[in-house]
Amino acid sequence: MSARGYAEAARAAALAALAEDLAGYGDITGSAFPGDGLARVVAREAGVLSGTAAFAATAALVDPALLVEFRVADGGRFAGGDVIATVRGPLAAIFAAERTGLNFLARLSGVATLTAQYVAETAGTTARIAATRKTTPGLRALEKQAVVHGGGTPHRFGLFDGAMIKDNHVAAAGGVRAALALVRSGAAHVHAVEVEVDTLDQLDEALGAGASIVLLDNMDTPAVRAAVARVAGRALVEVSGGVRLDRVRELAEAGVDVISVGALTTRAPWLDLGLDMGA
Amino acid sequence: MSARGYAEAARAAALAALAEDLAGYGDITGSAFPGDGLARVVAREAGVLSGTAAFAATAALVDPALLVEFRVADGGRFAGGDVIATVRGPLAAIFAAERTGLNFLARLSGVATLTAQYVAETAGTTARIAATRKTTPGLRALEKQAVVHGGGTPHRFGLFDGAMIKDNHVAAAGGVRAALALVRSGAAHVHAVEVEVDTLDQLDEALGAGASIVLLDNMDTPAVRAAVARVAGRALVEVSGGVRLDRVRELAEAGVDVISVGALTTRAPWLDLGLDMGA
Amino acid sequence: MSARGYAEAARAAALAALAEDLAGYGDITGSAFPGDGLARVVAREAGVLSGTAAFAATAALVDPALLVEFRVADGGRFAGGDVIATVRGPLAAIFAAERTGLNFLARLSGVATLTAQYVAETAGTTARIAATRKTTPGLRALEKQAVVHGGGTPHRFGLFDGAMIKDNHVAAAGGVRAALALVRSGAAHVHAVEVEVDTLDQLDEALGAGASIVLLDNMDTPAVRAAVARVAGRALVEVSGGVRLDRVRELAEAGVDVISVGALTTRAPWLDLGLDMGA
Amino acid sequence: MSARGYAEAARAAALAALAEDLAGYGDITGSAFPGDGLARVVAREAGVLSGTAAFAATAALVDPALLVEFRVADGGRFAGGDVIATVRGPLAAIFAAERTGLNFLARLSGVATLTAQYVAETAGTTARIAATRKTTPGLRALEKQAVVHGGGTPHRFGLFDGAMIKDNHVAAAGGVRAALALVRSGAAHVHAVEVEVDTLDQLDEALGAGASIVLLDNMDTPAVRAAVARVAGRALVEVSGGVRLDRVRELAEAGVDVISVGALTTRAPWLDLGLDMGA
Amino acid sequence: MSARGYAEAARAAALAALAEDLAGYGDITGSAFPGDGLARVVAREAGVLSGTAAFAATAALVDPALLVEFRVADGGRFAGGDVIATVRGPLAAIFAAERTGLNFLARLSGVATLTAQYVAETAGTTARIAATRKTTPGLRALEKQAVVHGGGTPHRFGLFDGAMIKDNHVAAAGGVRAALALVRSGAAHVHAVEVEVDTLDQLDEALGAGASIVLLDNMDTPAVRAAVARVAGRALVEVSGGVRLDRVRELAEAGVDVISVGALTTRAPWLDLGLDMGA
Amino acid sequence: MSARGYAEAARAAALAALAEDLAGYGDITGSAFPGDGLARVVAREAGVLSGTAAFAATAALVDPALLVEFRVADGGRFAGGDVIATVRGPLAAIFAAERTGLNFLARLSGVATLTAQYVAETAGTTARIAATRKTTPGLRALEKQAVVHGGGTPHRFGLFDGAMIKDNHVAAAGGVRAALALVRSGAAHVHAVEVEVDTLDQLDEALGAGASIVLLDNMDTPAVRAAVARVAGRALVEVSGGVRLDRVRELAEAGVDVISVGALTTRAPWLDLGLDMGA
Repeated sequence: MSARGYAEAARAAALAALAEDLAGYGDITGSAFPGDGLARVVAREAGVLSGTAAFAATAALVDPALLVEFRVADGGRFAGGDVIATVRGPLAAIFAAERTGLNFLARLSGVATLTAQYVAETAGTTARIAATRKTTPGLRALEKQAVVHGGGTPHRFGLFDGAMIKDNHVAAAGGVRAALALVRSGAAHVHAVEVEVDTLDQLDEALGAGASIVLLDNMDTPAVRAAVARVAGRALVEVSGGVRLDRVRELAEAGVDVISVGALTTRAPWLDLGLDMGA
Repeated sequence: MSARGYAEAARAAALAALAEDLAGYGDITGSAFPGDGLARVVAREAGVLSGTAAFAATAALVDPALLVEFRVADGGRFAGGDVIATVRGPLAAIFAAERTGLNFLARLSGVATLTAQYVAETAGTTARIAATRKTTPGLRALEKQAVVHGGGTPHRFGLFDGAMIKDNHVAAAGGVRAALALVRSGAAHVHAVEVEVDTLDQLDEALGAGASIVLLDNMDTPAVRAAVARVAGRALVEVSGGVRLDRVRELAEAGVDVISVGALTTRAPWLDLGLDMGA
Repeated sequence: MSARGYAEAARAAALAALAEDLAGYGDITGSAFPGDGLARVVAREAGVLSGTAAFAATAALVDPALLVEFRVADGGRFAGGDVIATVRGPLAAIFAAERTGLNFLARLSGVATLTAQYVAETAGTTARIAATRKTTPGLRALEKQAVVHGGGTPHRFGLFDGAMIKDNHVAAAGGVRAALALVRSGAAHVHAVEVEVDTLDQLDEALGAGASIVLLDNMDTPAVRAAVARVAGRALVEVSGGVRLDRVRELAEAGVDVISVGALTTRAPWLDLGLDMGA
Repeated sequence: MSARGYAEAARAAALAALAEDLAGYGDITGSAFPGDGLARVVAREAGVLSGTAAFAATAALVDPALLVEFRVADGGRFAGGDVIATVRGPLAAIFAAERTGLNFLARLSGVATLTAQYVAETAGTTARIAATRKTTPGLRALEKQAVVHGGGTPHRFGLFDGAMIKDNHVAAAGGVRAALALVRSGAAHVHAVEVEVDTLDQLDEALGAGASIVLLDNMDTPAVRAAVARVAGRALVEVSGGVRLDRVRELAEAGVDVISVGALTTRAPWLDLGLDMGA
Repeated sequence: MSARGYAEAARAAALAALAEDLAGYGDITGSAFPGDGLARVVAREAGVLSGTAAFAATAALVDPALLVEFRVADGGRFAGGDVIATVRGPLAAIFAAERTGLNFLARLSGVATLTAQYVAETAGTTARIAATRKTTPGLRALEKQAVVHGGGTPHRFGLFDGAMIKDNHVAAAGGVRAALALVRSGAAHVHAVEVEVDTLDQLDEALGAGASIVLLDNMDTPAVRAAVARVAGRALVEVSGGVRLDRVRELAEAGVDVISVGALTTRAPWLDLGLDMGA
Repeated sequence: MSARGYAEAARAAALAALAEDLAGYGDITGSAFPGDGLARVVAREAGVLSGTAAFAATAALVDPALLVEFRVADGGRFAGGDVIATVRGPLAAIFAAERTGLNFLARLSGVATLTAQYVAETAGTTARIAATRKTTPGLRALEKQAVVHGGGTPHRFGLFDGAMIKDNHVAAAGGVRAALALVRSGAAHVHAVEVEVDTLDQLDEALGAGASIVLLDNMDTPAVRAAVARVAGRALVEVSGGVRLDRVRELAEAGVDVISVGALTTRAPWLDLGLDMGA
C-alpha cells in the first residue's frame, strides 16, 4: 500500500477514534493535570508490532507537542517487558491519548502476531498467507497492513480491485463458464478474475474458460493436491476455508500459491500492552 | 443509549465500511448480475445477536430496494443452523452488501455472546458486567451496545462523561486526596468521579475524601472481600483487571457492584455466520 | 475543557463562520488591496475578554501570514480604549478576517463580562455561577468556556455527560422516586443523576431515593433557605430559574452550591470592539 | 433567500446543534422513558416568530416520528401564553429535541421581534431596516432571515456578494476615487460597489466617481439630511452607526433608503419560550 | 460500474456543483418567482446522451418537488430539435437547477457522442474503444460512464485497480523484467499487471516475463501489426498514443483488443443543449 | 478572487481528484519503486499557463516531501518544448501525483490559452472577454481563474452574487419592467441587476426601468451597434450568444463593454503536456 495511503488511513482512523473518547469537555479527569511527563509503552507479552502510524497520528492529533519515539518498527518482534515506544510531553495530552493509542497498537499487533505464526508454519514453501475481507469495519487498510507487517500478503482490498466469482455467482449464472462470461463483459480488461471452485469438475471448467486464478474452497488436503496437479501451472492457486494453524503447513506443502485465512482478523486476540509513567 | 444515537452510529459505521469495499467501479464481480434473489443469514454456531442496526443500514445504503427481515432481535439467542435474517432484492445489491453486513453481525455478536457468558456466571448476584474503553477504534458505540445486548452495562462512553482517577493520576498529583481535589476543581458539579485504588490504605483515603465510586484494580479475591467490607455501602464498588470467565463468579459473590472486563471486546472471536442464497 | 478541545472548537467555529463571509470570489472589496498593514483591536467599552482562540483561528485560516498578538488574555479585564490585540500582515487578509474575528470576540466577551458581574455579586460566598444549555446553536463549547473565563463553572456540556431529572420526567414517570429508578437503570454507574424539585416534599423524596445533587427550580429565597437546611450536606444544591443580577447574592448567601443562570448566554449584549488601522 | 437555501441552512444548523447536546450515549436521562407524549411550545412573552425551519429540522433529525405542527408562521406575531407549536411523538425524542429546538426559536424570534420594533418606528416612510454582518458565527443565514421575518431587509450576505468600500479601504488607497478604481478593477462588472463616506466632501468625491450606493457612517441627523439633498436621487443612500430605536424615525424621515442596524443581532435578547407537556 | 456507485457519484457531483452556484442567498434572481412551470431540455444538435443521473440528482437536490422525465436514456441517440427531458415544478426551482443540470448533460453527452464516433469507426472488428485517466478532476466516475454510454469500455478506474508499467517505471527499474518483478512483489495476487512497450524487443521481454496484457505505445500501424502477430494470443493487446478518429479503424483492423483514446475526454466539445419554458 | 479562496479551491479540487486515483491500496504500480527522482513537466505545444495552484496542491497532498518549482507562472506564455516545472522527490510520490497534476494543468491551461486568443482579438478596444457559468461541475473557481489568467474577466461567480434577468424570467413575469420589480423586491439593495434584452424595444423598457447593466443576447452586429448608441452610456453593455473567435473583434469595435463567451470553457481542448523523468 502506498505510504501516503497508509498514513492517511491511520490519521483518519485516529481522528474517528479520538472523537469517541473526547466529546464534550474532553478528558474531564486528565485535563486538570499541569506539567509534562514521560511515558513508556510496554509489552506485557511477546509479539509482532503493527499500528505505529495510528499511534503516532493519535498523539499528534491530541497535541503536536507530544514526542513519540518508537524502539520497535512495524513488523518488528518484541518480548514481554520490552519498551516499544516512549511518549514525552504535556501530562494532560498523554492521558488523553493513552487509551486510543493503545487500542490501535494492541488490536493491530494482535493481527500481525497471529499472521506471523501462520507465516512461520509455511517456512520453506512458496505459499503466501493472505488476508481476507473479514476485517473490522472501518479498519480495513490498517488490518490489511498488519497482515503485511506479520509477513502475509493483503489480497484484494475490496470488491473493486479484483473480481472473484464465488459459489453464489456460479449458481446465479448457471455455471462457471457463464459466470465468467458475465463478469468479463462488465469488468475492465485490466481486471483479473479469480474463480472459486468446489470440485475438480468445476476446476476443469474454470481452466477451460481461461481463468488465471482459481480458489479452492473448503477442500480437504488430498483434493487440494489433486487440484494443484490438475492446474499444472496454468493458473495461480489459492486455497481457503477455515484454515487453522495446525493445518496450514500441509496446505502449503501441497503446492498452493496463496492460503487465505479469515482467522488472521477474526480470531486474533489483542496483545496486552500498557502505558507506564516514568523513565 | 438513545435509539437515535444507536441508529446514527450504525449508519455512520456502515457508510465507512462500505466505502472500504466499494470504491472505483464498485463490485466489479457482482454488478454484472441481473435479476432479484433471496438470501438467508445463517448461523454456523450458537450465540447472542448484536449488530442488526448496522446490518440493516448496510443493506439500505447499498440499495433501498433491499428488504431485510430479522428473525432474531438484538440480544436474542440463536442456535447453529438458525436463520437469523432474510434479505430479498436485486442480486447485485445482495452481493455488494454481503461481506460488509456479515462483518458487523459476526464481530458484534461475538462481543454479545462473550458478554452473555460472563453475565451467566454472575446469575443470582447483584454484580453487573461492564464494558471498558478497550473497544475497536471507530466501533465504540456499537460494541458498547453489543455488551448491553449480551446483558452487560456499558460504563462511561469516553473520557468526557465520567471522571476516573487512575494510578498514573494519583502518582502525578502526589496522592489520592490531591488528585481528587484537582479533578473536582476542573470538572462540572454534575460529573461523578471514580477513584482507582490498589490498596486498602488508598481505599480509606478515597472514602475519606468523599469518593462515591471506587475501582479495585487487580486485587485478589480476599482483598476484594475486605475492601467491600471496608466500604460498607458508602460508595459503589467496581473491580477490574484481567478478569477471566472462571473467576468472575467469586468476584460477584464478594459483593462488588460492577465487574469491568476488557476481554469482552479484546478477546471475543467473531461468530461464524454465512449468507446462503435461496429460500 | 481540555486545551485541545477548546482549540478544535475554536477552529471549527472559525471555519464555519468564514464560509459564511467568503463564498464565491471571497472578499470582492478587500482582495484588490496590495501590501501589508497593521491593525489594532480596540475596546470601545470595558469588559472581560473571551474568544482569543477563535479570533486567532480566524486569522490563521484566512492567511497563515497574519501575525496576531494579544495584549489581554482570555479572562482578563480591559477598559474602554484599551488595545486588546494587534494584527500584522497582508492588508487583504486583515480585511477578510476583520468582521468574523470581531464577531467572535464581541459575542464571547459579552458572555464573559456578564458572567463576571454575576460572579462579583457572590464574592465571599461558596456559591458558583453556572452556565446552562441555553447556548447559541453551534457555539456551545466557546460560550461555556466564556462563562469559565468570566469566573463561572460550565455545568454539564450536554444531555450526555450528566443526567438531570426535570419536572417533565417526574410527571412522565409518576414521581421522583420512579423517575430516578428509571434513569438509573439506563445510565452507566459513573453517571451522576441530578434531580429537580419544586417543593420540600419532592426534596425529601429525592433525598430518600439517594439523589446526590438536587436542583431547586424557581423557589423563592425563603424556600431555598429551608431546602438548604433540609439537605444538610447530604447532597449538592443547585438553584435556577430566571435569576437576575440583583437577586444572585441573596441566593448565594442562602447556602446553595451552584446558581445556574440562563441569562449569561441569552441576555448578554455583544461588547463594542473595533478594528483600527495603524500603529 | 431561496427556499432550499433556508431549509439547508436550518438543517445544517440543527445537525451541528444536536451534535453538541447528544454525544456519547445521547440523552442519558430521557432515553429511559418509554411511550409517546404531546408537548406544546408556549410563549411566556409576546413577539414575532422566527426559526420554525430549524425547530422542525431539529425534531426531524432526532426522530422522524416526531410530528410538529406550528400554529404561528415565521414572521407571525404571538402574545404571552400563546401556543406556538405542538410536538407529538415518542417521549424520549421530545426530551432529546426540546432544548436544541427551543434555543433556535428563542434566539431567532428575539432577532425578529427587535427588528419588528425598528420597522414599526419607520412606518409610513420608504426607509428599510437592514441587517449587518454582525451575526452570530454559524447562524448568518438564519439570523438574516429572522431580520426578514421581522420586516427588515437582509443587506449583503457576506464579503462576496456586494462590494463595500469603508474608511480603512479609503485610507489604504489614498482616497475615495482611488479606492473605487482599485475595487472595480478586481470585481466583476455585475458587482455593485457601495462607498462609505464620513463627510460631504467624500460624498461629492464618491458621486463624482460614479458610486451608485453610498453609506453615511455615523453622521448626525442634520448631516444626513444635507447628504440626502446633495445626492438628489443619483444614488441609493444607506445610513449606519449605532442606530438606537429612539432615533430610527428621524433618520427614516430624513429620506434615506436603508438604515442598517447592528443591534438587530447584537442586542436582541432571547425570547422566553418553554415546552409544556400535555394537551 | 455498480448502479449504486453511479448514482452516488452523480449525487456527489451535483451537490458540489450546486454549491458553486447557490451560496449566500442562493438564486437572487429566480427565487423571487412564484408559481409552477414546465420546461423542456432541447437538443440544438445531434448526439448520444449521458448525464441523466447527475441531471436528475441536481433537480432532486434543488427541490424534491421537481418532476423530471427523460425521453431519451443514457446511451440513446437524439437529433437536433429533439426534446430530451421535461422538468415540471416550482419555477424558482427550475431556474435554480437549470445551469447546473445542463452543464452535466452537455459535458457528459459531449464525451458519449465523441466516443460513439470512435466506436462506429471500429464496427465489425473486435477492438474496444477505452477511456483513459485523462478525465476532468472530480468527474471521473461520470466521464468513464459516459464513455460506456457511447459504447466504449472504461479501462481501470485509477491507480488502484489495475497495475500498469509505463516507460518511466521501466527506466526506474532498469528494464521490463525488473519492473515487473518489482511491481508483482508489492501488488496482490489478484491484481493484473499491464506492461507498456515501445519496441518489439520490449514486447518479447514482457511476454517472456509472463505479462498477460501489453500496451503498445505510440507505434505506427505496421509495427502494431507486427506486434499483434508476435503476441499470437498469449496476451491481451492494447494500443494508445494520440489516436485520431481517422486512424482508429486501421488500428482496429490490425487486430488489437483495446484502443485507448485520451481525446474522448480531452477533446470532446460540450453539446449544445438548452432549456426552453413551456410545453 | 482572493488568494485564500483560490488556494482553498485548488486544494479541495486536488483532494477530490486524488481520491479518484488513489483508493484501496493506492498506486499499486508505482508504490513499489524506492528512491528519489527528478521529473520535468514539459509542454508539447504552446499556450498560456493556468493551474499551478492545483498542481502544487496535488503534489503536496501526495507527499509533502515533493519539491515543485514552476518556471512559468499562471498567466505566463510558453512554447512547445518548454519546461514548465520541475518535481523532485520520492519516485513513488512522483508516479502517484503525475496524472492528477497534469490533468489540472492541461485542462486549465487549455481554458487560459483559448481565452488569450479571444483577448488578443480585442486588442486596442475597451471590451473585456468574460467567462460564463458554463463551467465544468466542481471546477468553477479554477476555470474562472483560468479565464483571468488568460486575460479575461470572470463575470458573476454563481446565481448568488449578481442578478440577471433572462428571457425566461421576463416571460414568467410578463415583461421586463415587471421582472425587474419582482427581482428588486427580493434582492438586497447592494445587488446589481443585469437585464437581458433581445430587441431594441426591450432595451428601451429596461433602460426606462433603471437597469444599470444590459445583456444583448444573440443580436447581429448592426443591432449591437444600434443598441450601444441607444444606451449612450446610461448602462454597461454586455453581449453574448455563440461568439466565435472570428467575430469577437467586430463586436468589440461596436463599443460593448463586455463580451461573454461560453466557448472559453466548453470548447477549449486540453493542452498537451507531459511529465518526463530526468534533468
